[in-house]
Amino acid sequence: MSEVSISDYLQTHLKRGDGQPMNRQIYQLLRDGILGGAIGAGLRVPPSRALAADLAVSRNTVTYAYEQLGAEGYLEARTGDGTYVANTEPDMARLPAEREAAGTDGQAVLSGRGSRLLSGIGASAMQWGAFMPGIPDLTRFPHEAWSKLQQRHWRRADPRLLTYGDGAGYRPLREAIANHLRTARSVNCSPDQVIITTGTHQSIQLVSTLLGERGDAAWIEDPCYWGTRNVIRSSGLEPQAIPVDGEGMRLEEEAMRTPPRFIFVTPSHQYPLGPVMSLARRRLLLEYAARHQVWIIEDDYDSEFRYTGPPLASLQGLDQADRVIYLGTFSKTLFPGLRIGFMVVPAGLAPSFVRANSEMYRDGQGFLHAVLADFIQEGHFSSHVRRMRQLYAQRLRCLQGAIRHHLGGDAVTSGGDAGLHLVLGLDDGADDVRISEAAAAEQILTRPLSAYYADPGTARKGLMLGYAAVPEEQIDTLFKALARVIRRGGGLATA
Amino acid sequence: MSEVSISDYLQTHLKRGDGQPMNRQIYQLLRDGILGGAIGAGLRVPPSRALAADLAVSRNTVTYAYEQLGAEGYLEARTGDGTYVANTEPDMARLPAEREAAGTDGQAVLSGRGSRLLSGIGASAMQWGAFMPGIPDLTRFPHEAWSKLQQRHWRRADPRLLTYGDGAGYRPLREAIANHLRTARSVNCSPDQVIITTGTHQSIQLVSTLLGERGDAAWIEDPCYWGTRNVIRSSGLEPQAIPVDGEGMRLEEEAMRTPPRFIFVTPSHQYPLGPVMSLARRRLLLEYAARHQVWIIEDDYDSEFRYTGPPLASLQGLDQADRVIYLGTFSKTLFPGLRIGFMVVPAGLAPSFVRANSEMYRDGQGFLHAVLADFIQEGHFSSHVRRMRQLYAQRLRCLQGAIRHHLGGDAVTSGGDAGLHLVLGLDDGADDVRISEAAAAEQILTRPLSAYYADPGTARKGLMLGYAAVPEEQIDTLFKALARVIRRGGGLATA
Repeated sequence: MSEVSISDYLQTHLKRGDGQPMNRQIYQLLRDGILGGAIGAGLRVPPSRALAADLAVSRNTVTYAYEQLGAEGYLEARTGDGTYVANTEPDMARLPAEREAAGTDGQAVLSGRGSRLLSGIGASAMQWGAFMPGIPDLTRFPHEAWSKLQQRHWRRADPRLLTYGDGAGYRPLREAIANHLRTARSVNCSPDQVIITTGTHQSIQLVSTLLGERGDAAWIEDPCYWGTRNVIRSSGLEPQAIPVDGEGMRLEEEAMRTPPRFIFVTPSHQYPLGPVMSLARRRLLLEYAARHQVWIIEDDYDSEFRYTGPPLASLQGLDQADRVIYLGTFSKTLFPGLRIGFMVVPAGLAPSFVRANSEMYRDGQGFLHAVLADFIQEGHFSSHVRRMRQLYAQRLRCLQGAIRHHLGGDAVTSGGDAGLHLVLGLDDGADDVRISEAAAAEQILTRPLSAYYADPGTARKGLMLGYAAVPEEQIDTLFKALARVIRRGGGLATA
Repeated sequence: MSEVSISDYLQTHLKRGDGQPMNRQIYQLLRDGILGGAIGAGLRVPPSRALAADLAVSRNTVTYAYEQLGAEGYLEARTGDGTYVANTEPDMARLPAEREAAGTDGQAVLSGRGSRLLSGIGASAMQWGAFMPGIPDLTRFPHEAWSKLQQRHWRRADPRLLTYGDGAGYRPLREAIANHLRTARSVNCSPDQVIITTGTHQSIQLVSTLLGERGDAAWIEDPCYWGTRNVIRSSGLEPQAIPVDGEGMRLEEEAMRTPPRFIFVTPSHQYPLGPVMSLARRRLLLEYAARHQVWIIEDDYDSEFRYTGPPLASLQGLDQADRVIYLGTFSKTLFPGLRIGFMVVPAGLAPSFVRANSEMYRDGQGFLHAVLADFIQEGHFSSHVRRMRQLYAQRLRCLQGAIRHHLGGDAVTSGGDAGLHLVLGLDDGADDVRISEAAAAEQILTRPLSAYYADPGTARKGLMLGYAAVPEEQIDTLFKALARVIRRGGGLATA
C-alpha cells in the first residue's frame, strides 16, 4: 500500500452516518490495517491536512486519530520528515519453538488444584428460598435503622473511612465486637486481638497461610462445612477428616499419636449435624493443643441462636494456653451479603495478623465497619438477634411439627436446638443427592447431608433444612411437598 | 470439698452488690472451681432449693446457674439421684509425649511463608495525607449522589441483594462494567466474562490458584507493586523479576527461552515507574503468550487518568488468542475503601472462575454492587472521572512546578503523564528509605522507590509522590519541606 492508497483505503471503508465518530473510524481502520499487515511498517502516512482534504473531514478529525495512533505506538513521527507506520511486528526468530497446543475452553486449562477446588460440593446456586440452610430471614433485617446510620456516616464522608484499611479494621467496631464476645460468648479478648475480615473464608486463609506450612495436616470434622475444606486445601494444607459423634469431634488415641498443625472445630453447634462438643472433649482438646503446639480454630458461626437456653460459652474462653483462634461472622446474625467476619487471635500474634491481612487482601470498607459499629453500640444488633431467636424458635417448632405430621413421629432429626437448620435423617440406602435435586425441581431447596462427608459413599444420608427464613404459614405446605419427594425417592430413616 | 462446703465456698466468694448478677457469679465460681480442680469430679452439688436458702437468693438464681453448667457439661443430672460434678478432666495417659515447647509471641510461631509475607515492603501504615501515592481525592467523591442511591436500594431491601452472591457479582454491575471497558478501554468482552471481586489482590489470588500449579513461574515487572509479588508468592507461585525499561517489561531472548506460566504486567502505566508498554513489545508479548500458552495478567489499575491525551487502548483488546486476563479496580477512580475490583477472563474460563470465586471467598455485597451499578449507569462515574482527571492534571502541574522551583530544572521525574503519582529520581547513592522515613517524621508521606525492586541493593533510588489528593494551595509549601528533607538526606538525581 502506498501513501495514496492509504487515503483510498480509508475512503472505501469509512461508513458515514453509521453513528461512530469519524475520528474513531479512521483510528480503528488504520489500527486494524497495521495489525493485520495490510498497511506495512515503514510506510509514510499522508500529511493530516492532505488526508483531511481527501476524506472531506476536518483536519482535527485526522489529527485526533494520528495522535492516538502515535500515543499507542502505531505511528512514529520523524522530525522534519512526516509520520510513518512504526515497525511493531514481533520478530518470530526471537521466539522459541512452540509449546504443544492446549485449548482455553472449559476446565481443560485449569491447574490441578483449580480442578480439585471445583470438584466437590460447594455453594448452592440458590441462596434464598425455603428450605435453604444457613440463611437468616433477610426480610426482617431492620433496614430503616441501618439506612439511617449509613446516611449519618455518608453525610460526614470522613476520608479515613474511604481509604484503604489498616489491616485490623475500624477501631470502634473492634471494640464493639470485643464487648459482645466477652459478655455473650465468654471469649477472653481485648479489642487489639480482634481482626475484621470479609468472612470466615478469609479468616481461614489467613490462619492457614500465617501459621501453617504447605503440606501441614489440618484436622477437620467429618462431616464439615465445604468452605472449610476448600479453603484449607487451596491454602496448601492437607485436610484430615475426623469423625464426629454426639460429643463433637472424636479424639481417638490412634489419630492423636501424630499431632496435626491445626484442628478446625465447631464446638458450639457442630456443622452440619448439630451436637455440642462435650466439656470433657473440650478439655482434652485444649490440653492436647497446649502440649503439642496445635492451633485450634473455633468456628462459632451461628451460636447466638440457641433455643434451649442461653448460648454456651466458647471454647476460646476455656483456653489457658493461647492455642485457640476464634472465628465469627455476621452472616447469620445480620445478613450474609454484608461480608463482615472477624477473628480473635492470641495477643502476641495480633500484630502479625493485622499486617498479613493488609498484605494479602488490602482491606477497607471503613464506612461499612463504622455503620456496623454504631448498629451494635446503639443496641440494634442485640435486639435484632433477640427478636430473631424467638422467631426462629417458632419456625423450628413449626417445622418439627410438620415433620411429625407428614412423616410420622419416628422421623429422625438432629441439630434442632440451635442455629438456622436441622438435619432430617434418611435411610442409609436413600440417595440424598437425588432427593435434593428432585426437591429443587419443585422449587424446594435443601442440601444433601452425604455431600458434606469426606467419603460420600459411606456417609450418613439426610437433608439439611433451613427454617429461619421460611414464614410459619408456609412451612407445613412446603414440607408436605418435600415429604412427597422424599417418599418417592426412597426410605426415610426411623428411630 | 463436700456438698456442704460447696455452699460455704460460694458464700465466701460471692460478692454482693458489685454489679454482676448473682446467677452469673454462682455459675462462674462453680465453673472455675471445677476447671481448677478445687471442686472434684463426682461430687454431688446441693439441691437448688437448699443452696438458694443457704445463699439467701431466689431458687431461680441457682437453677439458672445449674442449667447453664449442665448445658455446658460441668454438671450432670442422675435421674432420681440429684446433680453431680461431671468428670471432664483430660485423661493424660491418652495424650502422647509433649512436643518441644515454642512460644506464641511475635513472629516466632509464624510459618516460613507467613514470615516471608511480612518480610518485604507492604502497605503503608498511613493511607491518607500528602504525598501518599495511589490515593484519589476522597473529599471530592460525590457522596450525596452515592448516599441517595444507597437509600433507594435500602428502601427496597431486596433479600437477593442481602444474601450470598453467585460468584460472579450483581448482573447489572457486570453489564455496566463491560460497557465501560468496551468504550473507554477497548477491552473485548461481554458481561459474562466480567467477574466482580473485592479488589486486585483477590483477582490475582483467583488467577494464580485456578490456572497455576504450586511452583509455577510468574514473571513480574522489576520494580512492581508489592501486592502483586506478595499475593503471587503466598499463592505458591515463584515470582521472577524481569527488568523494566522505557517500553515496559524487557523481553529478552535469554529469559524467553523458558516460558513461565504467567506474565504480570501494567502496560498502560507501569507501576511504579510510569512508562507505557510500546506497541512492538505488546505484540511480541501477545505472540509469545499465544505460542507458549502463557497467561498474561494485565493490571490496568489507574489508566483512566491520563493527562496527555485520551486513555490508551488495553493490551487485552489486541489479544486474538484468549491469553490475556484483564484486572481493574474502582480504588483509584472512586475510593479504595469500596473494595470492588473486577476481572475479565476469556469466555471459556468464565464459568470456572465464577464458581471458584464463590468456593474460595463466598462473595456477596449485592447491595454495594447495586449502588455502584446505578452510579455508573446514571453517569455519575464518568462525570466524576472526568472532573478528577482535570483536577489531578492541575495538581500534577503544580507539583512539577514546585519540584522545579525547589530542586531546580535538572530534577528527574517520571511517570507524570498518567495516574495518581510521579517518581522523583534520587542519586544512586541516596538512601531513599531513610529519606522517606525522615519525611514521614514531618508528616509528609512518600514511598521509597528502591523498596519496590526485587533487589533493593542495586535498585534505582527515588521517591513516589502522590499528588491527586493534595490541594493545590498546599503543594508548594509541603514540597518545600520535603525538598529540605531530601537535601539533608543526600544527593538528588539530575538529568
